[in-house]
Amino acid sequence: MSAEEIAIEKLTLNGIAEDDDIVDPWNVHSKNDAGIDYDKLIKRFGSSKIDEELLARFEKLTGRKPHHWLRRGIFFSHRDLNIILNMYEQGKPFYLYTGRGPSSESMHLGHLIPFMFCKWLQEVFDVPQVIQLTDDEKAIWKDLTIEDAIKMSYNNAKDIIACGFDLRKTFIFSDLEHIGSNPAFYQNMIRIQRCVTFNQVKGIFGFGDSDPIAKISFPPTQAAPAFSSSFPFIFTNAKVNCLIPCAIDQDPYFRMSRDVAPRIGFPKPALLHSIFFPALQGPKTKMSASESNSAIFLNDSAKQIKNKINKHAFSGGQTTVEEHRRLGGNCEVDISYQWLTFFLEDDERLEQLRKGYTAGEILTGELKKELIEVLQPLVAAHQDRRSKVTDEVVKQYMSPRDLGFIPQK
Amino acid sequence: MSAEEIAIEKLTLNGIAEDDDIVDPWNVHSKNDAGIDYDKLIKRFGSSKIDEELLARFEKLTGRKPHHWLRRGIFFSHRDLNIILNMYEQGKPFYLYTGRGPSSESMHLGHLIPFMFCKWLQEVFDVPQVIQLTDDEKAIWKDLTIEDAIKMSYNNAKDIIACGFDLRKTFIFSDLEHIGSNPAFYQNMIRIQRCVTFNQVKGIFGFGDSDPIAKISFPPTQAAPAFSSSFPFIFTNAKVNCLIPCAIDQDPYFRMSRDVAPRIGFPKPALLHSIFFPALQGPKTKMSASESNSAIFLNDSAKQIKNKINKHAFSGGQTTVEEHRRLGGNCEVDISYQWLTFFLEDDERLEQLRKGYTAGEILTGELKKELIEVLQPLVAAHQDRRSKVTDEVVKQYMSPRDLGFIPQK
Repeated sequence: MSAEEIAIEKLTLNGIAEDDDIVDPWNVHSKNDAGIDYDKLIKRFGSSKIDEELLARFEKLTGRKPHHWLRRGIFFSHRDLNIILNMYEQGKPFYLYTGRGPSSESMHLGHLIPFMFCKWLQEVFDVPQVIQLTDDEKAIWKDLTIEDAIKMSYNNAKDIIACGFDLRKTFIFSDLEHIGSNPAFYQNMIRIQRCVTFNQVKGIFGFGDSDPIAKISFPPTQAAPAFSSSFPFIFTNAKVNCLIPCAIDQDPYFRMSRDVAPRIGFPKPALLHSIFFPALQGPKTKMSASESNSAIFLNDSAKQIKNKINKHAFSGGQTTVEEHRRLGGNCEVDISYQWLTFFLEDDERLEQLRKGYTAGEILTGELKKELIEVLQPLVAAHQDRRSKVTDEVVKQYMSPRDLGFIPQK
Repeated sequence: MSAEEIAIEKLTLNGIAEDDDIVDPWNVHSKNDAGIDYDKLIKRFGSSKIDEELLARFEKLTGRKPHHWLRRGIFFSHRDLNIILNMYEQGKPFYLYTGRGPSSESMHLGHLIPFMFCKWLQEVFDVPQVIQLTDDEKAIWKDLTIEDAIKMSYNNAKDIIACGFDLRKTFIFSDLEHIGSNPAFYQNMIRIQRCVTFNQVKGIFGFGDSDPIAKISFPPTQAAPAFSSSFPFIFTNAKVNCLIPCAIDQDPYFRMSRDVAPRIGFPKPALLHSIFFPALQGPKTKMSASESNSAIFLNDSAKQIKNKINKHAFSGGQTTVEEHRRLGGNCEVDISYQWLTFFLEDDERLEQLRKGYTAGEILTGELKKELIEVLQPLVAAHQDRRSKVTDEVVKQYMSPRDLGFIPQK
């Protein structure tokens, strides 16, 4: 058995040791203050670390410096990225797939990460992108009305579109609307459902006997977009490889998809996993849309951004200025620094800040100021782009249509 | 708790006594030679017997003599038929729903029963009829390709249409095609899936942990057509009561549907249950499309019909003519007589045959001859009507469309 197969086997048997972090699509919880142990997660999930060699190959093939999220280990783990690079090298096509469970509240900065990254990959590789809004999942888990869940999809689609996806190459869809408009998608759901037993989803997702069958039925719905035949209007009959950038908590769905793929005659989807964007209060958990002070929301004003960061951003500094000067700050836990690794693109400046803070020359307040100055224009620019996304534009992105895909370039 | 609720409770707990007949959508097996004990089944399922009083009310309201299948106890059990008759009395609308898991082979006589009966009900009540072809179910249970399962639906639709349904009031659909063409249907599937736990489907349908989740996900798919909002093109937004004629083995799906109905804001579907059409070899089991000598198929020739009946129809007669004359035959087990109760409409003639056979005046061979003479023209006429059902006609019945439904007559 490969490391991946062993990982599937272990996870199917609920093989989580007592001191392991909990990472699944509904729970992310670290057992220690430093946050999730991502190296351990790679071993447990059976994925591969994104290393210098892989990044060098990426740069050589694409002629593009890898995104700072790749360079900085924010996208830190993968499955079969080499196969995708091989295809790119050979001029063979592939496509990108990511998604999101839409929320009623505004999206926050952490939600943007897979989309900003996909937008960049779309630019680099010039490939089609499908984006699934799992409003059915939200309706199931959050017990929302179907109508409200669909509304949330449309609302979130605006923020996603504001990331700059190419309309000619991007299809965004709501499960609750699209599955009932695309027989091929439902047919693939059935094909996938046939290959997975209750025992398996029990092991992978932790479902129990008293769970509604809606939950048990859902994983194939998130797996279906990883197979190109779910979108005949984009790919006609071609079997096209798929690359899925996502936060690592979504990996269980795609471990399952990879397990099913050969049995339904499809290539295994490749994956790029990101770490979690930490909450303002500290790195132990994901940000939560339901705790407004844990996150910067995409509709926060410049003033709110400033106040939230100044008030709530967890500090890695010492208790007094004197002590800070003497002992230095801890970038590993300082949220302002951590967030800067996500959003300050300038490598040199980031390194200056790291060195200065660690040496005690830079205070937490100065890091916060730097972060505020990065985020205020970033969020304002997002708001500006979003304001231009009309209902008509959303409709265009969400219409099933030919994306000009050519089976072999 | 009502008798029905107690029955649901018991069945949810797999409460089948050791000497009970096994009756579920995939297994029908009697513990004794006389076949299924239907009175016991009514008690176990918590349904109601169709009695003289109900039939008298039916006749009084509709001005039609009840169908001989109602008079003869072939449709023997119901749930809430009184409510449907109340609605008819008050001029309130309702609709009919039945269905079938399509098969690759030709349909047999037993398969026609719900359809011939629905056709008659449609005539009596002048109401819309929806007919679900569960090709997804067949693809799941029989491990067929999706493409073959859909073909079977189209093939079987021809036999169903040949029963004479009114095109203006009848919608036939394949799950594998239609669910992906009707967002409201998928949305109702999710609504229903949310209300049913794995424990419940385990109890009702006997699913286990090693079953594929395709099976676990399926029951809401068969439940969805019982709710009028699944067909917005027929019923717009009206909440319309539903009457489901079906063989009693399908009851588990609709017990579940009735349980869910109030939770999703819909009236409980009413039911009319038929007994099973016995195999040529005897009344212990259902006919099987996979054993060609157990059934008369709708594409059998007059000669095949004659040969099968003469060769295989189980006889309730005595071993010698002399003994038969002396002791008489047993109509309860004689298949020719049993089949005549289904297909010989003339009550007087049937009574003559019963008396004569029981008295030993009529021999099994004579009953067989009578049956052959009833079935040969019936099947020939069906074949004739079927031959006129072109692909174009099938397409018309299977197009989602307005059926001229008026919410309040």
